[in-house]
Amino acid sequence: MKKLFIAAILSVPCLGFSAFAQTDYQTDSIFIRKIFNTALGDGKSYEVLRHLTQDVGSRLSGSPGAAKAVEYTRDVMKEQQFDNVFLQNVMVPHWVRGAKEQGYIIDGKQKINVPIAALGGSIATPKEGIRAKVIEVKTFQELRGLGPEKVKGKIVFFNRPMDPTKLNTFEAYAGAVDQRGAGPSEAAKMGAIGSIVRSMTTRLDDVPHTGSMRYASGSPLIPAAAISTNAAELLSKTLKDKPNTEFYFKQNCETLPDAPSHNVIGELKGSKTASQYIVVGGHLDSWDFAQGAHDDGSGCVQSIEAVRLLKVLGYKPNNTLRAVMYMNEENGLKGGVAYADSAKNKNEKHLAAIESDRGGFIPLGFGIVGTPAQKAKITSWKNLFAPYGLHEIGPGGGGADIGPLAGQGTVLLGLIPDSQRYFDYHHASNDTFDKISKRELELGAASMAAMMYLLDKYGVE
Amino acid sequence: MKKLFIAAILSVPCLGFSAFAQTDYQTDSIFIRKIFNTALGDGKSYEVLRHLTQDVGSRLSGSPGAAKAVEYTRDVMKEQQFDNVFLQNVMVPHWVRGAKEQGYIIDGKQKINVPIAALGGSIATPKEGIRAKVIEVKTFQELRGLGPEKVKGKIVFFNRPMDPTKLNTFEAYAGAVDQRGAGPSEAAKMGAIGSIVRSMTTRLDDVPHTGSMRYASGSPLIPAAAISTNAAELLSKTLKDKPNTEFYFKQNCETLPDAPSHNVIGELKGSKTASQYIVVGGHLDSWDFAQGAHDDGSGCVQSIEAVRLLKVLGYKPNNTLRAVMYMNEENGLKGGVAYADSAKNKNEKHLAAIESDRGGFIPLGFGIVGTPAQKAKITSWKNLFAPYGLHEIGPGGGGADIGPLAGQGTVLLGLIPDSQRYFDYHHASNDTFDKISKRELELGAASMAAMMYLLDKYGVE
Repeated sequence: MKKLFIAAILSVPCLGFSAFAQTDYQTDSIFIRKIFNTALGDGKSYEVLRHLTQDVGSRLSGSPGAAKAVEYTRDVMKEQQFDNVFLQNVMVPHWVRGAKEQGYIIDGKQKINVPIAALGGSIATPKEGIRAKVIEVKTFQELRGLGPEKVKGKIVFFNRPMDPTKLNTFEAYAGAVDQRGAGPSEAAKMGAIGSIVRSMTTRLDDVPHTGSMRYASGSPLIPAAAISTNAAELLSKTLKDKPNTEFYFKQNCETLPDAPSHNVIGELKGSKTASQYIVVGGHLDSWDFAQGAHDDGSGCVQSIEAVRLLKVLGYKPNNTLRAVMYMNEENGLKGGVAYADSAKNKNEKHLAAIESDRGGFIPLGFGIVGTPAQKAKITSWKNLFAPYGLHEIGPGGGGADIGPLAGQGTVLLGLIPDSQRYFDYHHASNDTFDKISKRELELGAASMAAMMYLLDKYGVE
Repeated sequence: MKKLFIAAILSVPCLGFSAFAQTDYQTDSIFIRKIFNTALGDGKSYEVLRHLTQDVGSRLSGSPGAAKAVEYTRDVMKEQQFDNVFLQNVMVPHWVRGAKEQGYIIDGKQKINVPIAALGGSIATPKEGIRAKVIEVKTFQELRGLGPEKVKGKIVFFNRPMDPTKLNTFEAYAGAVDQRGAGPSEAAKMGAIGSIVRSMTTRLDDVPHTGSMRYASGSPLIPAAAISTNAAELLSKTLKDKPNTEFYFKQNCETLPDAPSHNVIGELKGSKTASQYIVVGGHLDSWDFAQGAHDDGSGCVQSIEAVRLLKVLGYKPNNTLRAVMYMNEENGLKGGVAYADSAKNKNEKHLAAIESDRGGFIPLGFGIVGTPAQKAKITSWKNLFAPYGLHEIGPGGGGADIGPLAGQGTVLLGLIPDSQRYFDYHHASNDTFDKISKRELELGAASMAAMMYLLDKYGVE
């Protein structure tokens, strides 16, 4: 294929731009083009991510990997000569997996080993593991309908798949993830002794996807694990043929006392209103058996890169611009909360916060949380993003880590990358650096830099 | 991240739809939703592609793999109970690589092995290989400026990279690929004895990317190869330090007599104007050392799937719908030419032809070649595609294989997927099935089915 469909920036008509003048549009479109050219032609984020994922590796809150990641990202921003780089103390939950889990489908004399991973926050099984008959359900309603007499002493198997027909895979995730987060306590309330859940992915494969769960107050604590989708299919099929099939699993996880950790912050000082802030961030922690390349190494390196791009292009910000690596999004959100608390305590007025936590995929737009006027203002910039394929600029979600800033009147923006591949790798051991497209990662960073530039230049009111 | 930005089809307002009524819009949007639901929830293309790439494997024109691919795709369409499945004879060029190439940078006593691949259509080196000093150039103008005295007896090294700042990577490719296609004869005209070219990719890696070249009439034939981008960087650096550095390569390729092969065609008969055709296709051939997953196994399986989706949804087409696997796009285009010739000879009126030959990535739109009225009509359907992320519907390229139909008044449409990753794998050994996202592949197939449906229902005039 040689003929081209090119969105040439200079030919984009200035439609619907009531918010600012033609001159500004041209100035901005030229500057944004420079941002993208620099990101694509001389970007640094890919090599930073290579080190973060392959050399630092996994970095669950409280782990040595998380501590190394704090040091490494601080060093990167220092080397890039940010005006100020510092750590912010955060106490984080400290859950450890322990020795690798074991899981078996036991069908009469046959014992089939299946891929399994304890859910974050779960208790261990007894040392000898647990073995019991299995009750498969698709919903909590179905589980409750069975009544305690049918569930008591058994392992509940939550097997409602993510709906593959949802275009936005986050919607499919939202429609299934209650089974992981709240399923264990729902099962325990009915007398179950263990809970297993189909991994949160639309793929059929052999990779268990972990994620956090939370015990409901007052309900018994039972061990909870995810099994791979192929294992879920096999178990379901086996149960149909032989309802007395048993499941065995053994896991060795443990919740240790909270541990000290850090958010990592780098900034470019504002030249006019330095006590006002615009921040861009991702979360530095990952699950323990994952490199966390898409979740959320990408968001971290894109955030550093967004600030670096503005710096190397000589942009003098009005407000102070920050890249923030939040700690502990996966199992506590303590970093996001600590950041917002600190901002409030120090009276740091945060105009806007951008988060990238949907993977380093091709960027399609930004979701905005703010007042109607703020949304309208930001949406009016959409023609500046259109040449780069960002069509989805409008109301939407911000991000978990920046959510706590909402109470301070901060406009929240979430980068929206294409979601088709995200749950292939989410919270799983295959979320590795080789799944990253350098160009896609760079386009996301440039998009964030461009948004930061416009927010800084035009404000949010 | 849990909050969602969802383009819900039913909430899309009916804006700018002058071409057809509200009722039709609703009927169409519901039917297109069914197409996407079926593709994502019960799609067949991914497993067909698995077999085509992993079991059939590479399929360069004239090879046993190409013959197997013809049989396999015919069988798939027969099993899927298309109304009519048949082969169309095509004579194709038959170039073979022979034993694997060898390439070395010779820097004094040091001899560094580098990844290299003969270009399709190139002659072999002499059996002992060729060894000569190297002249590095970025453009033909620079080469001509050097004059024969500086080039004679040497190997010309074309080292102009694809421009990474181009958003559309096909544009970057178009800006560099002259070095591969015409470089060898440009070098030969100046007295060079061999030609090597930097691989056509923006990545820095160790994978040589082949592709076709063509000797200019009257110029001497010299052997031509691609070297990996890392090898190109190393060679360039070495030449800067030591201009007397030599390059050695040996390749064993050969052009055999033309061979018989086939286009593979499956159809659903039209219920009203069966002698009018709308076709959707991709090319079945791949390079010899590639599985050809993105180029263009994807386009083939998406084409079969597009027709299958309409069939299983019970759609009764007005016109005859065809899936066409063209043979020999890579090094001759004989299949595309034979198809158009046959259509003309049999007086088969082709209303429209759709091609997918830009990889199985997330679909963003369609490029249209046709009259202004035809483009306007097709563009007026854009709101029906918007819920699926296809924003780029407008003038653009069709596709190489369908190009020969242009003279028959056929509207040509090229599926436009996101281009960021395409040249990571293009014409290289890493274009393998594991690089395919099932959902992205399926969304492309559904997009093609939806376009085929609208073209069939509303016509092109």
